[in-house]
Amino acid sequence: MTAETMAVGQLTVIGVGLIGGSFARALRQAGLVRAVVGSGRGEANLRRAVELGVIDRYELDPARAVAEADVVVVGVPLGAMRSVFTAIAPALKPSAIVTDVGSAKASVVADARAAFGARPTFVPGHPIAGTEKSGVEASFAELFQRRKVILTPLPETDPAATAAVRSLWEAAGAEVLEMSVAHHDAVLAATSHLPHLLAYGLVDTLSRWDDSSEIFQYAAGGFRDFTRIASSDPIMWRDICVANREAVSAALDRYLEDLTALAALVRAGDGAALEAVFRRAKETRDRYVAMLEQ
Amino acid sequence: MTAETMAVGQLTVIGVGLIGGSFARALRQAGLVRAVVGSGRGEANLRRAVELGVIDRYELDPARAVAEADVVVVGVPLGAMRSVFTAIAPALKPSAIVTDVGSAKASVVADARAAFGARPTFVPGHPIAGTEKSGVEASFAELFQRRKVILTPLPETDPAATAAVRSLWEAAGAEVLEMSVAHHDAVLAATSHLPHLLAYGLVDTLSRWDDSSEIFQYAAGGFRDFTRIASSDPIMWRDICVANREAVSAALDRYLEDLTALAALVRAGDGAALEAVFRRAKETRDRYVAMLEQ
Repeated sequence: MTAETMAVGQLTVIGVGLIGGSFARALRQAGLVRAVVGSGRGEANLRRAVELGVIDRYELDPARAVAEADVVVVGVPLGAMRSVFTAIAPALKPSAIVTDVGSAKASVVADARAAFGARPTFVPGHPIAGTEKSGVEASFAELFQRRKVILTPLPETDPAATAAVRSLWEAAGAEVLEMSVAHHDAVLAATSHLPHLLAYGLVDTLSRWDDSSEIFQYAAGGFRDFTRIASSDPIMWRDICVANREAVSAALDRYLEDLTALAALVRAGDGAALEAVFRRAKETRDRYVAMLEQ
Repeated sequence: MTAETMAVGQLTVIGVGLIGGSFARALRQAGLVRAVVGSGRGEANLRRAVELGVIDRYELDPARAVAEADVVVVGVPLGAMRSVFTAIAPALKPSAIVTDVGSAKASVVADARAAFGARPTFVPGHPIAGTEKSGVEASFAELFQRRKVILTPLPETDPAATAAVRSLWEAAGAEVLEMSVAHHDAVLAATSHLPHLLAYGLVDTLSRWDDSSEIFQYAAGGFRDFTRIASSDPIMWRDICVANREAVSAALDRYLEDLTALAALVRAGDGAALEAVFRRAKETRDRYVAMLEQ
């Protein structure tokens, strides 16, 4: 096996949802896996994953699912990571590469070390992809095309394991980057976890308005886009906010401070200062979109 | 002229941008106007509007533009409403119907009364439509299809004038509703003005982050949707926030209070409480989308 042309005998996906399912589909489509075994808590979902051809078979017991695995991808909510790692630790082949797709990395790393010790073939990862939909029904092989995947290898991680995981994500069409756990968690808190909290918070605030049943009728198209992420999976986002609470709290505090200042400008009717903020934000956002479209 | 089949001899559009331009296009496509005259501050924009066939001709002086008008639509930023109304007041035919498309109504009504007195043929209006784009280039006849238009007729408004404006918007494909000025402003503060402030605020906060040039690279698809409205016109939104500052401040204060409570839950790592908020928000948002898709 080389990093460039890694072919996987058996891939085991624990948590066959949007991300895990799409990863399996992509590798299968690239001809890189011989067998895909699924595991997870919902047997109906696993049966559906077999019907859809995402996995070949499933084992409800994660330890049995990983026994013959060459690569294991754990795609469960962050709150379930530790119990999955603990369950599979005794059953893994020593050479088996283990990676995850969790949206916060410090908590996953702590969970992995608690279960595996300093395992050289554990490679923490996070594909920055997804939609507000979840479940294997929503999975598709192209999900990671032109998306970024961040790997946060640890001091104990074998560079060959990192290279192997990188090659799989690249085969799935992603651009792979490496950074530290702490930097990942701070950046994602700002660009992903904070916006989700703001959107959930706005919809919740409005839903408790006196005339909330009426209020949504007058929401324009922009509102639908703005709140799309409030339709995301509540369990997944609960776990992200808890697992990454330090970085999320820091980002939220900063935002609350800025929003309080903005509220003072509105109350004072300070059009010039508001315009300056809006102009700066528009320029930044337009630059960001131009960057995406390059 | 009857309300059902109103045909307009001359329509004058002051401010030939996305909304005013799309309205002219829609009425022209419906065969309801004989001549469309444009006015506004930017002569290049007006010339472009003639080239695009949105208007037949233009007058830089709004008073000249309205002299022969049967219907006048004012589609300028809220901060420019009073000066436009004041300029056209002496030139309007007594029978001319005047309406506007401003996103906040109390300030427009105050501006109109200051210029016109209690004019029976002034009908305040607000089409809940638009994109983050602006300008006549972005206008299209179908913009108002299946969109809502809110009219806020005043005690002095002649019901026949309201019916006439209603029939034009319906001809443009919109669903027309009537409500009080105060209710309009409170509802729009919550569902439109507040989200715009939150999005502008978030992008501005992130743009002042230490590593802001890097940070946006890791923003996922959800971020693009969430911040789309931060690419809206800064002048227009400055004016909305100033004109509707009381209702916007009230909505912002309520949101700040809720977000502060949410921040405390994050800091405490209170997963159960966070999940309850996220679940409630997701249910509300999913219901809202289902309503839209009916």
